[in-house]
Amino acid sequence: MTAIRALTIREYLDLAKETVDDELNGLLPAADEFPPSIHAAMRHSVFAGGKRLRPVLCIEAGKLLEGDEQGILARACAFEMVHTYSLIHDDLPALDNDDLRRGKPTCHRAFGEAIAILAGDALLTLAFETLLSPGPPSGEAKLRVACELARAIGTRHGMVGGQVADLESGAEQVDAARLEYIHSSKTGALIRMAVRAGAIYAKASEEEVARLTTFGEKTGLAFQIADDLLDETGSTQALGKTAGKDKEQHKATYPALYGVDASVRRASRLVEEACEAIDLYGSRAQRLQALAHFLVERTS
Amino acid sequence: MTAIRALTIREYLDLAKETVDDELNGLLPAADEFPPSIHAAMRHSVFAGGKRLRPVLCIEAGKLLEGDEQGILARACAFEMVHTYSLIHDDLPALDNDDLRRGKPTCHRAFGEAIAILAGDALLTLAFETLLSPGPPSGEAKLRVACELARAIGTRHGMVGGQVADLESGAEQVDAARLEYIHSSKTGALIRMAVRAGAIYAKASEEEVARLTTFGEKTGLAFQIADDLLDETGSTQALGKTAGKDKEQHKATYPALYGVDASVRRASRLVEEACEAIDLYGSRAQRLQALAHFLVERTS
Repeated sequence: MTAIRALTIREYLDLAKETVDDELNGLLPAADEFPPSIHAAMRHSVFAGGKRLRPVLCIEAGKLLEGDEQGILARACAFEMVHTYSLIHDDLPALDNDDLRRGKPTCHRAFGEAIAILAGDALLTLAFETLLSPGPPSGEAKLRVACELARAIGTRHGMVGGQVADLESGAEQVDAARLEYIHSSKTGALIRMAVRAGAIYAKASEEEVARLTTFGEKTGLAFQIADDLLDETGSTQALGKTAGKDKEQHKATYPALYGVDASVRRASRLVEEACEAIDLYGSRAQRLQALAHFLVERTS
Repeated sequence: MTAIRALTIREYLDLAKETVDDELNGLLPAADEFPPSIHAAMRHSVFAGGKRLRPVLCIEAGKLLEGDEQGILARACAFEMVHTYSLIHDDLPALDNDDLRRGKPTCHRAFGEAIAILAGDALLTLAFETLLSPGPPSGEAKLRVACELARAIGTRHGMVGGQVADLESGAEQVDAARLEYIHSSKTGALIRMAVRAGAIYAKASEEEVARLTTFGEKTGLAFQIADDLLDETGSTQALGKTAGKDKEQHKATYPALYGVDASVRRASRLVEEACEAIDLYGSRAQRLQALAHFLVERTS
């Protein structure tokens, strides 16, 4: 007889991924819906095997603050659409020029550049449709999250701003302040916003929203440092994308600026601080805390 | 002494363009704001000299239905941002590969492909931020317009869907139904939505919204036919973009399918029908009606 035990974080993530994937499947147009190439391309990239960390963080933040789980699920998927749009455009020949993503051909390798550009555009657009469409949570919360998300992925300390700063910064010119800008904007802002959205959807007080935002911000930064470390130490096979590209392209990374050991320590400290920010929720915070730890301890 | 007389539609458009340009200037980040390249690129394309037809249509629909003009102005600018994003991405080498737009180098010619792709992304994102940011009109109207806009520019009978169908349809395979899909999705949906948004912001009844939507739909279609005709008959200098490209690229156009004369007749009939849809507003409808006529009678 198998003893009843708590799910490990990996088992939990596998289950959560299934739920998110089902929802994404319903939200994305069918692959044969006209015009089929764009829908096939959107599905190719969305279902290439992401871990769904952003939707899961949003959902778990909502759960922690007792939000309506079903109402949050669809909106949470919008964060995965935005993430996928950013990957498709980042991978393009004019940007990172990558052939592999999550172990599969990148969108432009599979569908050509024109469709890849438009598939990214379409996923960004569908993300906003998904955040704004009728149904719960409240109109006020939907309006606030969508507007804050637009800022978080824009050019002023947002995702696109971080991407531009990253593109234009060779490793030699990057100081600590610039690297912090790149990391907090390019990856951090969307992760922070996914967590924050869960809290806003749950109608949390401003104090609670701020607390979860701190958790999201520190987790997001730790995640990016871990990503830099994986690029340096991981294999192409394990990562499902070309390893060592940051160094090859003289990208600004944490290990390049501070060394591997200091980067590992900084990531661990950020996770500790993230977890502390929500410690007062006691056992209800355990899932989010386990997720934060997982994000920096993962190997792919 | 100069006699007092009504503004011609061209004079009115010049004035309205100034108002919209001032507002856009305040909404776009300054060209030297970090990271400067993306902001310079966004401004390059937004201020390349567009006629601001979409914001003007939105503002005039709002005025006709007695909406709060000042509250609508900023939101109306979002339609120009979306339009500009679509032009930047359409002009890319992987898509239409155009060097000139509105008489100036296209965004990727001036700033490189990477920044052009991201400038398009950033304008689409800023459009949603602009539609959703705090202030009038009501939250309900803002939510509705932004959600409907996301649909109007998405892949299902929206702008991106039309663009994909256009890319993948050589002139030889295009029948009347496909051409209608391309035109109504690629150009028509955004123009229709700009007019509709003005009505929604003005808290119009559903009947009034429907009436203005008919006006917008027919005007949008007429506008695209006129555009096809200009590509065939205009000069590169007058158009500010390369003339004759549709034919050269075997694009599906109205004149290619129906001939020039039938296309001229169809555009005129659509404008008449558009004007009829709002005739019951009497003299208050004159500005929108004059705009509709201008759109098909323009020479650039």
